[in-house]
Amino acid sequence: MKIEVCYSPALLHLFDTTGKNVVIIDIFRATSTIVAALANGAAKVIPVDSVARCIEIGNDTPNSITAGERDGQIADGLVYGNSPLTFTKALIQDKTLVLTTTNGTRLLHMVQNAHRILIGSFLNLDAIIEYLVNDQKDVILACASWKDRYNLEDTLFAGAVVYHLQNDHQMSVQCDSAIAASQLYTLAKGQVLTFLKESNHYKRLSNFGLQEDLAYCTTLNKHPIVPYVNDEVHIVI
Amino acid sequence: MKIEVCYSPALLHLFDTTGKNVVIIDIFRATSTIVAALANGAAKVIPVDSVARCIEIGNDTPNSITAGERDGQIADGLVYGNSPLTFTKALIQDKTLVLTTTNGTRLLHMVQNAHRILIGSFLNLDAIIEYLVNDQKDVILACASWKDRYNLEDTLFAGAVVYHLQNDHQMSVQCDSAIAASQLYTLAKGQVLTFLKESNHYKRLSNFGLQEDLAYCTTLNKHPIVPYVNDEVHIVI
Repeated sequence: MKIEVCYSPALLHLFDTTGKNVVIIDIFRATSTIVAALANGAAKVIPVDSVARCIEIGNDTPNSITAGERDGQIADGLVYGNSPLTFTKALIQDKTLVLTTTNGTRLLHMVQNAHRILIGSFLNLDAIIEYLVNDQKDVILACASWKDRYNLEDTLFAGAVVYHLQNDHQMSVQCDSAIAASQLYTLAKGQVLTFLKESNHYKRLSNFGLQEDLAYCTTLNKHPIVPYVNDEVHIVI
Repeated sequence: MKIEVCYSPALLHLFDTTGKNVVIIDIFRATSTIVAALANGAAKVIPVDSVARCIEIGNDTPNSITAGERDGQIADGLVYGNSPLTFTKALIQDKTLVLTTTNGTRLLHMVQNAHRILIGSFLNLDAIIEYLVNDQKDVILACASWKDRYNLEDTLFAGAVVYHLQNDHQMSVQCDSAIAASQLYTLAKGQVLTFLKESNHYKRLSNFGLQEDLAYCTTLNKHPIVPYVNDEVHIVI
């Protein structure tokens, strides 16, 4: 079982995703929000890359909610932002969440011929690891990053997966990115949020007053589910 | 003084190199070999990207030596390989080294409008740091990587530079790649070669019997020089 980490969508062409399990990672906050919404009973999440498309699909989809932010504010024309804390059971149960994100959605559409595309976050860390171990297919942990630039939070989640595959499941890892991510996780283990306070994205989102979101997005194993992308490019569990 | 790390030539377009000091890093082995050759008295190094061009420039340049490898062997038509141990004072003093490398040379030609392009390796770590501190320009530490893929050895050198700028010169760092590289270096400090034994490139070059080269390339501060690229795209000190 080959385990690789891709740090940016701009590097994805260097990896062959055919037949592999590809885990999409966008910790602050798309994949954390998707996991929270599905765990709280959303029927599905439809990821879209533009606000216009989000509104259009929202209009065409019964019992749906549109959501998305631009520059830390609810985007014009949408009803909710993309805080994972927004999507409580009371709001989202049995509804379709039409969510517009930039980095995560773009990456998801770039992945070709994967066996399965999974949605990873600290909220469902162990569930993802268990799925990967049981499935025994090669794995690519794909960081959505921030406008193609390496980021610490996505790397740290990838590192957490690699670390546990190495240490709890005795798997060997050859990919330098995976080795580095796992090593980095040894420094952050047990204090992920503290470690990430140095990061660019933590600082940017803190400036929008989103500390509670950031703490939530770094909570381990709150939602033991394994969301994946189905043939219609909808995310379900 | 802004300090950033670029992990791959495929990410270089995300960085603005204008007016900055850009350090080219190709630890195994191009930049280590260039530093060794210049420290041992080479008049200059001409970096070229193909074997054909290396032969051509070698023929046109009096008192020159051609060198380069493909797949761990001296390339057909060239006289020496690219082991840093080859270029002793007896061989190289006052001569021009025409060196063909793939990753490092390509990266060097991609950098636009830099204040200065410098050649970094563990062999001249402290000299590079001292130059950067004295010059006070923004810095981009650019990893040549391996066919555009992230590698541990270039990252670790970038991390060493960032670590010392933070800890010995009280500089703050905002770039997530730089923070991660520095953190990784805290795990490898004092045992760089041992840390790198897990890496892809170490294993690949070890299979060619190059352990002595690898040990040399991870020796700290053997050659306190600061090679840079001049207007003719020759590397001099």
